[in-house]
Amino acid sequence: MVNVYDQIKDLQSYYSPKIIAEVNNEYVKIAKIDGDKVPWHTHENEDELFLILEGFLVMEIEHQPTFTMQKGDLFVVPKGVNHKVSSKKECTILLIESKTTLHTGNVITEITKSINNQKNNV
Amino acid sequence: MVNVYDQIKDLQSYYSPKIIAEVNNEYVKIAKIDGDKVPWHTHENEDELFLILEGFLVMEIEHQPTFTMQKGDLFVVPKGVNHKVSSKKECTILLIESKTTLHTGNVITEITKSINNQKNNV
Repeated sequence: MVNVYDQIKDLQSYYSPKIIAEVNNEYVKIAKIDGDKVPWHTHENEDELFLILEGFLVMEIEHQPTFTMQKGDLFVVPKGVNHKVSSKKECTILLIESKTTLHTGNVITEITKSINNQKNNV
Repeated sequence: MVNVYDQIKDLQSYYSPKIIAEVNNEYVKIAKIDGDKVPWHTHENEDELFLILEGFLVMEIEHQPTFTMQKGDLFVVPKGVNHKVSSKKECTILLIESKTTLHTGNVITEITKSINNQKNNV
C-alpha cells in the first residue's frame, strides 16, 4: 500500500512522473508540475487520465477551449489528441497511463524520462 | 471533466459503484461503503485498484493480515486474490477496474450491480 500524498511529499523533481502502482495494463503515476515545460504531444494509441491532487492545472487540447482543472477534477485525454499541460504554481497530479505510453509522446525534450527512471524516481 | 468529490456528493446508494470515466480498457468508478455487505470475492483475471477519498476502509485479503486504508491510500488487489472490503463508518473510494470486471466477482448478492446500472447510477 502507498499513500499518494506521502509519495507526492517525497517527490524531488518537477515534470518527472513516478510510477507508484500498476493495475492491469496501466501504470499509476504521480507528478508535480510548476510552469510550462511539458511540450505539446500526442499518445497515438493510448488514453491518459489526469486527476488533480492539489493546485491548478491548465489543460490545452488542440482545437478546443483551454480549461483549468482543480483538486478532484478528473479528465481523460483520448488517444490521438494533441495536448499540453502547464501550471502557474505547483500542481500535483495522479496519472493513469498504459504501460506502453511515453509520457511526452514521441516528443523528446529536456524533461523526458524513461519508464525505468519513472520506476526508480526518488 | 468530472470532479470526484462532486460525484461522490451526488451518489445516492451505498455499495453501488458509479462509472465516472474510462481510460483504455479500464473503468474509473466511485463508490461509498458503510458496513460489511460486500461479500468475499475474487476477480480471476483482473487487478482492482482502491484509492481512499474519505474515511477508513478495512481491507481483508485471504491468508494475509487485515489492514485499514485511509485518505490517499492506494492499494491494488492482484487478480486471483480473494478479498473483502468493509467500513465502520461511511468511506468513499475511487476504483480502477477492467471493463470486463464484475464488481463482486462471481459472487452475486443483494448489492451486485450490472455495468449498465453502474453507468447510469445517479
